[in-house]
Amino acid sequence: MTLPAIGIDLGGTELRAGIVDPSGKVLARRQVPTDAHGGPDAVIGQMLGLIGALDGAGGVSGLGIASPGPLDPIAGICIAPPTLHGWRDVPLAAILAQRTGLPTRLENDANAAALGEWRAGAGRGLQHLVYVTVSTGLGGGVIADGRLLHGRRGMAGEIGHMSMVDNGPPCPCGGRGCWEALASGTALGQAATLAATLAAAGGAATRLRLPLTARDVTEAARAGDTLALALLHQEAVWLGRGFANLLHLYSPERIIVGGGVSAALDLMLPDILAAMHTAAQPAYHGIDVVPAALGGDAGLIGAASLMWPPHSPPGLSA
Amino acid sequence: MTLPAIGIDLGGTELRAGIVDPSGKVLARRQVPTDAHGGPDAVIGQMLGLIGALDGAGGVSGLGIASPGPLDPIAGICIAPPTLHGWRDVPLAAILAQRTGLPTRLENDANAAALGEWRAGAGRGLQHLVYVTVSTGLGGGVIADGRLLHGRRGMAGEIGHMSMVDNGPPCPCGGRGCWEALASGTALGQAATLAATLAAAGGAATRLRLPLTARDVTEAARAGDTLALALLHQEAVWLGRGFANLLHLYSPERIIVGGGVSAALDLMLPDILAAMHTAAQPAYHGIDVVPAALGGDAGLIGAASLMWPPHSPPGLSA
Repeated sequence: MTLPAIGIDLGGTELRAGIVDPSGKVLARRQVPTDAHGGPDAVIGQMLGLIGALDGAGGVSGLGIASPGPLDPIAGICIAPPTLHGWRDVPLAAILAQRTGLPTRLENDANAAALGEWRAGAGRGLQHLVYVTVSTGLGGGVIADGRLLHGRRGMAGEIGHMSMVDNGPPCPCGGRGCWEALASGTALGQAATLAATLAAAGGAATRLRLPLTARDVTEAARAGDTLALALLHQEAVWLGRGFANLLHLYSPERIIVGGGVSAALDLMLPDILAAMHTAAQPAYHGIDVVPAALGGDAGLIGAASLMWPPHSPPGLSA
Repeated sequence: MTLPAIGIDLGGTELRAGIVDPSGKVLARRQVPTDAHGGPDAVIGQMLGLIGALDGAGGVSGLGIASPGPLDPIAGICIAPPTLHGWRDVPLAAILAQRTGLPTRLENDANAAALGEWRAGAGRGLQHLVYVTVSTGLGGGVIADGRLLHGRRGMAGEIGHMSMVDNGPPCPCGGRGCWEALASGTALGQAATLAATLAAAGGAATRLRLPLTARDVTEAARAGDTLALALLHQEAVWLGRGFANLLHLYSPERIIVGGGVSAALDLMLPDILAAMHTAAQPAYHGIDVVPAALGGDAGLIGAASLMWPPHSPPGLSA
């Protein structure tokens, strides 16, 4: 019988810990605002406090941590999480293993969410999937051939930084035309702000008022605002074209969409599927795009799943 | 001790068979022009003839076949190879296993070449690499976490059909702006033909004469032709940008370049590396781009390697 495991989701705002059983059920949970300015010692102290306060933490198989990247999942080191002050090459897995006496593993937050959705959410039972999170940025994680795709230093699956447009808009990463720069929630808010400015100058009727976020666009679209619907159409086309690329690159059985912008997935899905169909070769047609099932718990559950036994192996290995 | 294996490389022009030892050495080889219009029975007959003529075919562990896609490597079925007349859903692995009595596996030709370079060529000893072949088309194969990346129906790693340009040039696949449409040898020949036409109309001095191929461009560039050098510069930029995408998507330790256009890799490498450096995040800088080492034998050796024991597992699996 597989024991429950502790999952920790280290975010720049919230620090969350839970005990998760192998079916993905969260048996106990605690959370505190992350002491993001306190440095590693303060946050590690918070983690130990949360673990100590979890009912049932005595009977677990180990501890998995989801943390913002960049990090090295093999060495268990947080390299330089941009939202955490003073963190630089912190051997977090080794420190927590030593302080708790538990086997401990570290994974980046997008990969952990992909693992959570795979083992206990919208990707259960599959061998191949891509999890895409569309919020402030655009990231994800890839399950292929029954395993999380890592690559060198665990840095595979940085899908938001696939360039899709020649001389495209600048991306926070320093590149141009990255998928993130075209289709993140930030990009959608910026497109909406520009469009609403132009619409207001032209005297057009729109509910959109500046400055705008992706959420404003979604709400206005649900209320029938024409400009907002047009903006979501464009967002859907960029998502669909990116998903078509992911089909050729990773050949998933399903694409799972999380993050804040996925709240508008129902409004966008017909346009997403049409754009995918146009851009993908016939052999890749018919792949589903579905919303994530675990919401904000995906990282926590995925972190705990690092301690579960491996998924059954795929048909082939070479 | 691992026994040698038989590798078969089924091409639209040549059919090749060899006995390959686990170091990648080809101990015996035979080849004939493929009876591409004869249908599956004729070609299977050719394969059995080649195998029978190989010295040492009695002491092998099995038989691996590299074939043009689309194919299903798990089921061992050739789905619809475009260069072979009359082939439709042919269970090639099962047929050859039954006719030879040997364990038999099937893999697509680009993946087989990636396996060959990994196990016995320019990627020996690595855990993560991308093999890119640039010739008439642009394709490849991905080794990640010590295994060939398959995905659903073995269709991952179709890197040539990653779209990189909005409303870009049409691709033979039906899409637009695919990397193949920008950077294949065919695309380079077309760009050269257009450029030479314009140059001739303008009275400029160039050695390029119509119609042009990628090989013509390379030869003229080696002779110092300015226009040919400019064309190779543009080719190098597209290759470098595509390689940067591959870094973010698969995080390889090395990129290995084969195919006809790789004959000009030495001329293009500085521009390729500069374009990669500009487009890739710092954590991916410094990854090597190297020429393939096995030449035309990569597919044959990779096919045989399907029968070798798996590579040692990577540090992590999940």
